[in-house]
Amino acid sequence: MAGYSVDHHLSDREANIHRSFDNSLDPVLSVEQGDVVRFECRDAVDGQLDLQSTAEDVTDVSFDPVHPLTGPVHVEGAEPGDVLEVELLDLQHKGWGYNVFMPGEMGLGLLPEEFPDPGIHVWDLEGDVGHFVNGIEVPLDPFPGVIGVAPGEDGAHDTLPPYDTGGNMDVKHLTEGSTLYLPVKNEGALFSTGDCHAAQGDGEVCVTGIEAEMFVTARFNVRSDMDIHQPQFETDGPFTPTGADERMYGTTGIDSDLMEATKKAVKHMIQHLNEERGLTRAEAYILCSAIVDLKINEVVDAPNWTVSAYLPESIFP
Amino acid sequence: MAGYSVDHHLSDREANIHRSFDNSLDPVLSVEQGDVVRFECRDAVDGQLDLQSTAEDVTDVSFDPVHPLTGPVHVEGAEPGDVLEVELLDLQHKGWGYNVFMPGEMGLGLLPEEFPDPGIHVWDLEGDVGHFVNGIEVPLDPFPGVIGVAPGEDGAHDTLPPYDTGGNMDVKHLTEGSTLYLPVKNEGALFSTGDCHAAQGDGEVCVTGIEAEMFVTARFNVRSDMDIHQPQFETDGPFTPTGADERMYGTTGIDSDLMEATKKAVKHMIQHLNEERGLTRAEAYILCSAIVDLKINEVVDAPNWTVSAYLPESIFP
Repeated sequence: MAGYSVDHHLSDREANIHRSFDNSLDPVLSVEQGDVVRFECRDAVDGQLDLQSTAEDVTDVSFDPVHPLTGPVHVEGAEPGDVLEVELLDLQHKGWGYNVFMPGEMGLGLLPEEFPDPGIHVWDLEGDVGHFVNGIEVPLDPFPGVIGVAPGEDGAHDTLPPYDTGGNMDVKHLTEGSTLYLPVKNEGALFSTGDCHAAQGDGEVCVTGIEAEMFVTARFNVRSDMDIHQPQFETDGPFTPTGADERMYGTTGIDSDLMEATKKAVKHMIQHLNEERGLTRAEAYILCSAIVDLKINEVVDAPNWTVSAYLPESIFP
Repeated sequence: MAGYSVDHHLSDREANIHRSFDNSLDPVLSVEQGDVVRFECRDAVDGQLDLQSTAEDVTDVSFDPVHPLTGPVHVEGAEPGDVLEVELLDLQHKGWGYNVFMPGEMGLGLLPEEFPDPGIHVWDLEGDVGHFVNGIEVPLDPFPGVIGVAPGEDGAHDTLPPYDTGGNMDVKHLTEGSTLYLPVKNEGALFSTGDCHAAQGDGEVCVTGIEAEMFVTARFNVRSDMDIHQPQFETDGPFTPTGADERMYGTTGIDSDLMEATKKAVKHMIQHLNEERGLTRAEAYILCSAIVDLKINEVVDAPNWTVSAYLPESIFP
């Protein structure tokens, strides 16, 4: 995105980091409408993992620091009832990232009962490509997993779930060039971001995208002409890894419960990757979380719904 | 798709039509492996609506004939435990189609409580384009809404829900050039198809795609090397209406229940189409069902999940 200059830099120093959404937090920066801010964002588990981390290290990871967010930023003129417009101008990773899933007893991820042991893949990120096992290369399309403003309700809000005001939405299409609209609940909006992903499949099924330290550059404006109840956005995608139609392998999940249909589609894809592509089940779970997209095919043919998982075949050597 | 010739024609005459999945039905055709069959398929409500139908006519529509299916076809050599491979070689509509939604008391569709009255749009289909109101043009990518084989359990099975053996899956990506894999439960597989859609958004939220009479041409093979529990497939999409990345407007639905998150995303999109694009709410509901795609962004950030609805902006004049 050409045509902008950065007005403010926010490093990831501790003074700029907070770990809950809370409308009583003091802003670390105040900006005018139209200002551009470059945020340095820590990774989701705040430096507890590095390039040499193994599955054993995952067991020791604490979730207390999840998610370290950069902000909050006060936007002049934003009032409750307004909408904060956030143009995502640039996203830049720092050359590495990781996917992890946690021991099943923690109950995280879509299929904790199937994966009692932890797993990890540390990714080399080179430009637009992430390197997986067996020569598999995943195209990178970085986005912030957590992006939002402070809720209207007082108190500290856990950053794990998303809210009406955004947060951990994990919308993978919030890529460079996208514009996000957030309902403002507090004077100044109080914007924060972090938990960036270099890539992610729709669903984020193992509980992580490719978690990566990142720079996020955004321009802020206030819209008083919009009436929205939850976040909305504009995006150019990509909607496939290559940005154009390409061969996908699809598995269906058909069930009378929408969550169970989702689980079935992912289980069937893990089996496919294991039996037909030679991945371990742990590798398959991680690859699903990094690149496989979940779509709702139908939610009207009662009593059974169809959810499908889509694997782009171009990632295989 | 070049390189094939049709071996068998099945017209939509009554003798070739059935209205439930039932492994006791006599096949209307028996084919060898590698044979190509051209199926003529009736529309979902079996001729009760035509080019001049209005919303009042929808009230009188009987669901008894839903869905008229063409078949069943017996495939030589298919045995329980095998997989039926169905290559979709060609799909051809007949120049018109319709979307309807039913009175709310029938409980059909994703949002019956919001739409107590019936609605209809009859589409002129010209080649690859369907004409909506206000100059809106929807790209057409025809596919069979119902495609499957007879279940293993004896008796008549309603064709409204999909099953482990396929049926009304409404997977919009089963377009020309796709290959579908179906778990065989009966000797000869007993394949049927119908309920074709000229276009549909992922979700099919108002309960119909662009319902259209159609010809479906498919080649059959039996695979004994696959082990699948529900249908799987290969497809080239399209994954956007134009087959490449394009601008989408997105609405999120964030909720602790996945179905409720889905409803919120669609409600927000209907509001957007109504307020920003000048459609009536009924037109917006139909347009969502015809072209807006539902994606599961995350199902792991407990206790709240994110579902989003994607509107391609290229359909507007």
